[in-house]
Amino acid sequence: MRGVDSHGIRLLPHYFNSAISGRKNPKPNFKITNNFPSIAHLDADNAFGHAAGMKAIDIGMEIAAKQGIASVAVSNSSHPGAMASMALRAAREGYIAFAFTHADALVLSHDSTRPYFGTNPVCFAAPRAEQDPYCLDMATSIVPWNRVLLNRSSDTPLEPGIAADKFGKPTQNPHDAAAVMPTGSYKGYGLSSMVDILCGVYTGMAFGRSIPAMFTTNIQEQRKLGQFYMVMRADGVIPNEEFIGFMQQMTDEVRAEPAIDGKSVLLPGDPQIICAKNRIKDGIPLDEATLGALIKIGKENNVKLNYYS
Amino acid sequence: MRGVDSHGIRLLPHYFNSAISGRKNPKPNFKITNNFPSIAHLDADNAFGHAAGMKAIDIGMEIAAKQGIASVAVSNSSHPGAMASMALRAAREGYIAFAFTHADALVLSHDSTRPYFGTNPVCFAAPRAEQDPYCLDMATSIVPWNRVLLNRSSDTPLEPGIAADKFGKPTQNPHDAAAVMPTGSYKGYGLSSMVDILCGVYTGMAFGRSIPAMFTTNIQEQRKLGQFYMVMRADGVIPNEEFIGFMQQMTDEVRAEPAIDGKSVLLPGDPQIICAKNRIKDGIPLDEATLGALIKIGKENNVKLNYYS
Repeated sequence: MRGVDSHGIRLLPHYFNSAISGRKNPKPNFKITNNFPSIAHLDADNAFGHAAGMKAIDIGMEIAAKQGIASVAVSNSSHPGAMASMALRAAREGYIAFAFTHADALVLSHDSTRPYFGTNPVCFAAPRAEQDPYCLDMATSIVPWNRVLLNRSSDTPLEPGIAADKFGKPTQNPHDAAAVMPTGSYKGYGLSSMVDILCGVYTGMAFGRSIPAMFTTNIQEQRKLGQFYMVMRADGVIPNEEFIGFMQQMTDEVRAEPAIDGKSVLLPGDPQIICAKNRIKDGIPLDEATLGALIKIGKENNVKLNYYS
Repeated sequence: MRGVDSHGIRLLPHYFNSAISGRKNPKPNFKITNNFPSIAHLDADNAFGHAAGMKAIDIGMEIAAKQGIASVAVSNSSHPGAMASMALRAAREGYIAFAFTHADALVLSHDSTRPYFGTNPVCFAAPRAEQDPYCLDMATSIVPWNRVLLNRSSDTPLEPGIAADKFGKPTQNPHDAAAVMPTGSYKGYGLSSMVDILCGVYTGMAFGRSIPAMFTTNIQEQRKLGQFYMVMRADGVIPNEEFIGFMQQMTDEVRAEPAIDGKSVLLPGDPQIICAKNRIKDGIPLDEATLGALIKIGKENNVKLNYYS
C-alpha cells in the first residue's frame, strides 16, 4: 500500500512456496531469552521474517516502556519484507525505533571486484503530531537487486552507475550484472557492513558471503537470517508532548522549504504516505506477472481470487 | 593521529578562542538525569563537546554493563570533534556503540534550493580480536564543508557534484558554494534528518536551520548542540568470545576479498588504523596555516610550542 512494490504482494508466491517447501516454518515456536534487563533475543524457529519482526518489535516496546530503551535481536529468521512495517508499528505507539535486517552478498565492495555485503537496509521511525510517523527506510545500495531482475525480464538497459558485472566493472547490460553499487560509494558500503554486524555477527547467524541467497538457493534450505531492533521512549529528556510537537515543527518546516521547479521538499516516508492515501482510495495496482503468479497459486491450491481488472 | 585532519589539531585555535570568549564553559557542572533505568540525559552546561561526549560514553558503558543496552543524550553541548573518539572508547572496552551529533544547515535538501540539515555524522564501532575495533564514522554529506573552505583559501575549483550555490544549482566555484551535497542523494539527506531527530528534537535542543553556525556565529554565543549515544553489550545473544571471533572472521574475510588493481579491500576504519600506525612513528604533520595559528596563540598566551620543522 505504501508503494514499496519490490517488497509487496509480488513476493507472495515466493513466500507461499517457501512455506510449503519447508524453508519457512508456518507454525514456529518462538523462544525469547533476556540475558540482561533491556536486551532480548528472539529465536524465530525459521518463521516468516514478518512474523518474527512484529513479535520482536512488540517485545521491544514492552521492555522500552519500563527501561527506556530496548534492543531485540532475532535469529533463525527469513526475509522480513520492508523494515518500515515493523518500525512504524512502534512509532504509531509513540516509540522511536530502529530496524535492520541483512541480505546475501549482492553489493559491490569498495575497491573490490565482487560483493561481500548485501543491500542491508537501515530503517528509523519516530512519532509526530500528525497520524503518520516519520519513517526512513533505505537499502544501502543505490537500487535494489530487484531492479536488475526487472530489466532482465524486459531486456532493458540499466541506468549507468548502478550495477557491475562479475569482474566488478560497470555495466548497463542487465544480463551481465552480478552486483549493484552501494549508495554514496564507500559510505553505503560502510553502512551495509554495520548492518551485517548487528544482524549477522551479533546474532550468531551467517554474515557476508555465507548468507544463503533468497531466490537461487534451494527452496528447501532455511536461510537463518538475523534482524535487529532498537526501541526507545520519546520522553527520555523532554516530555512526550514536546517531542511530538518538535517533530511536527521539523516536519512542517521541511515541507515549507523552497523547492526546485515542479518539486516539493519532503521528509523520508512522505512519498509512501502520499502513495498510501491514493491506494486506499484506488486500490493497489498489480502487474500482469504478479497477477498471473497469484492466479496460478490460487488454482493449484483451490483458492479463488477476487480482483478488479 | 587517525588522519581525520578536518577534525584534528587545526580546530585547536577555534576551540581555544571559543573557551576564552565564553561560548564554551571550561569548568562545566555536568548534570545527569535518569528518567528510566536504561536511559540517561547529560546536561553538559556548555562544556567542550569532546568532554561531554566522553562523559556520555562512560555513562553509557556503566548502564549497559548491567542493563545490556543504554542510550545517553547530551544537551547544551558544542562541537565534539570526530565521533569515532567516543565510539572507539566504548569499543575498546568491549562494547558496541553508536555515536551521533548534529551540525548547522549546510547540506542541500533533496529537491530544495537550500540546506535544512547539517553534515550530521553517523558513527558505529564494535570490538574484535585485533586491538583496533571496527569503526564506521561518516558525514552524511559527500565531503565536509571544510573542503569548500580549503578550496576557497587556495582558489581551487571543487570537484563536480559535491557543492551547490545559493540557488541550489551545482557549482565548482568554491567562492559561490553555499551548500554541500548529501551522500547518495536523498539517502544521505534522509540519514541527516534521522541524526537531527536524535540530537536536536529528542534532546530539546535546536534543529534544522535554527542551529547556530560553528564559525560565522558570534564567538560569544553558546551553540547548545546535542549528541546521542547508544552503547550495548556484545554478548546479548552469543558469548563475548564468539562475538569477538566472528567480528575478526568478518574482518579477515573482507580484507582477503579480491581487489581492483593497485587497491586493497578494507573495512570502515581501516584507513584510519593504517594512518595512526604511521603517525605514531613519524608524527602528525602540520600545515603552515595551522602551525602559524598555534604559534600565534602560544605567543599571545605565553605558551612555548615545541615542534619539529
